[in-house]
Amino acid sequence: MKFEITILGSGSALPTIKRRPSAHFVNCNERYVLIDCGEGTQLQLRKYKIKFQRIELILITHLHGDHYFGLVGLLSSMHLLGRKQKMQIIGPEGLEELIRPQLEIGGAYLNFELEFKALSYPTSEIVYEDNVIEVASIPLKHRIPTHGFIVSEKKRLLSLNKSIFDMHELSVALIPSIREGKDVVLEDGSVIPNHMLTLPPEKPKKYAYCSDTLYRESLIEYITGVDLLYHEATFLDIEKDRAKKTFHTTAAQAGVLAKKALVGQLMIGHFSSRYDDVTEHLKEASIYFENVITAEEGMVVRL
Amino acid sequence: MKFEITILGSGSALPTIKRRPSAHFVNCNERYVLIDCGEGTQLQLRKYKIKFQRIELILITHLHGDHYFGLVGLLSSMHLLGRKQKMQIIGPEGLEELIRPQLEIGGAYLNFELEFKALSYPTSEIVYEDNVIEVASIPLKHRIPTHGFIVSEKKRLLSLNKSIFDMHELSVALIPSIREGKDVVLEDGSVIPNHMLTLPPEKPKKYAYCSDTLYRESLIEYITGVDLLYHEATFLDIEKDRAKKTFHTTAAQAGVLAKKALVGQLMIGHFSSRYDDVTEHLKEASIYFENVITAEEGMVVRL
Repeated sequence: MKFEITILGSGSALPTIKRRPSAHFVNCNERYVLIDCGEGTQLQLRKYKIKFQRIELILITHLHGDHYFGLVGLLSSMHLLGRKQKMQIIGPEGLEELIRPQLEIGGAYLNFELEFKALSYPTSEIVYEDNVIEVASIPLKHRIPTHGFIVSEKKRLLSLNKSIFDMHELSVALIPSIREGKDVVLEDGSVIPNHMLTLPPEKPKKYAYCSDTLYRESLIEYITGVDLLYHEATFLDIEKDRAKKTFHTTAAQAGVLAKKALVGQLMIGHFSSRYDDVTEHLKEASIYFENVITAEEGMVVRL
Repeated sequence: MKFEITILGSGSALPTIKRRPSAHFVNCNERYVLIDCGEGTQLQLRKYKIKFQRIELILITHLHGDHYFGLVGLLSSMHLLGRKQKMQIIGPEGLEELIRPQLEIGGAYLNFELEFKALSYPTSEIVYEDNVIEVASIPLKHRIPTHGFIVSEKKRLLSLNKSIFDMHELSVALIPSIREGKDVVLEDGSVIPNHMLTLPPEKPKKYAYCSDTLYRESLIEYITGVDLLYHEATFLDIEKDRAKKTFHTTAAQAGVLAKKALVGQLMIGHFSSRYDDVTEHLKEASIYFENVITAEEGMVVRL
């Protein structure tokens, strides 16, 4: 099973050479999802050699440019590269009306279906579901309507009980069907029941993406126990008044929230361009919560 | 006097890591002009350390994304960085209606005045003029309404007649006023007339930017004798049918046009992403016109 997040942009409103605007690429058991799409995201996808035509779902948190200015360019390039399969985009009301005219005025009649689903604010609902993943929206508190998202694996496959499997000298070709729950029928017609060959599956993993937002304890009900919480930490705590004024969070506040929500790991990002270095952010969040990492371009986090 | 063009993007519709979408930065005697603004232009401006807040005029040729998708992000960053002075944008009809809603929906009420001037197609007219430069639009022939631009110096200062200047042992502080045409009054009240101290100025320079377009001999009337012609050469001549079908030009055609228009130098660019290397484009254009260069990211051309 694979649940990986690749950081394409860890910066905030002002893109710099070092920190690009927000974009996280999620590969959950070969379901490819993009969360946010700041300017230049298509080149970041190329840089990190992600097969971006396989993205079928794009989630946009809100309509500040550092979270969606790269969307129209990405869709345009997907078209030019011959995309045929549908793309679903889930984001704030108004997004479709900003994107479609830009595609249409250039005469690019897309060869693929583009479906927008508009999120009304503030809601928390299941916004996407297939046999592999489920995505829920969660209301954040920013200057304009903003949602975070939780991407959850539907289920993990059963774990192989290797000692029993080896004892029967079974072919490795049987492993996928065993992990899906099937019994094994031997050549002599006898049956090894599945429960003999397997152990309970690992708990399905959850990834929560929360940017941009004020520190809000009301988030805890949604994110409690997620394996990885990405939470914005635009400022250091010394700038907490500024954070409040601009509806952002400090690194300390992100740490406190992670602790209260009992998450597995905290990743902080959306760093203001005023900081050349984010070591202090890491230190500050770590005071309140042990397992913290800082988002860095190109970094891959495995759940 | 300074007339410099910095290439920010030499690619075409599909941005790649190596070749970015169209954008040329022009510094004509400290007038800063940006021509086209594909996605990521703001980071290219940062990369090449251009003081982009000093840009007062942006020219957009047409509404294909590789020529304007970076505009909204650049304007947004200018705002965030505290810009106060007016920005003038000259481009196709419809551009303003695509850009303003994206700024407004995010709640970014700009601290600077943004003035759009819409070009009706096909026209050739003086679209901008101040005491330093003049900009003319020229109609190109592409799949959607498209204009090229000619940026011309208004005048060059008089050249100093150094031998006469030295003979009188004058202060170098007088040079600027002498070059502007003023006489010199000596301490004893006697006057050295300006024509004694100066030589005729150099001919003002002209830069023509022609992208994207079919090969068109009707362009010659506009571009004859320009010092530098930037002309698209999306394809090699072996793809001339494809060039025609997509309303683009081949390298050979760009060379022929440069020769017929008696330009000083030809710079080719807007290369299709299918070409890893553009040596063949250079060779092909050079068959017809001697003085050819290929546009490369970060290259500075001085007129």
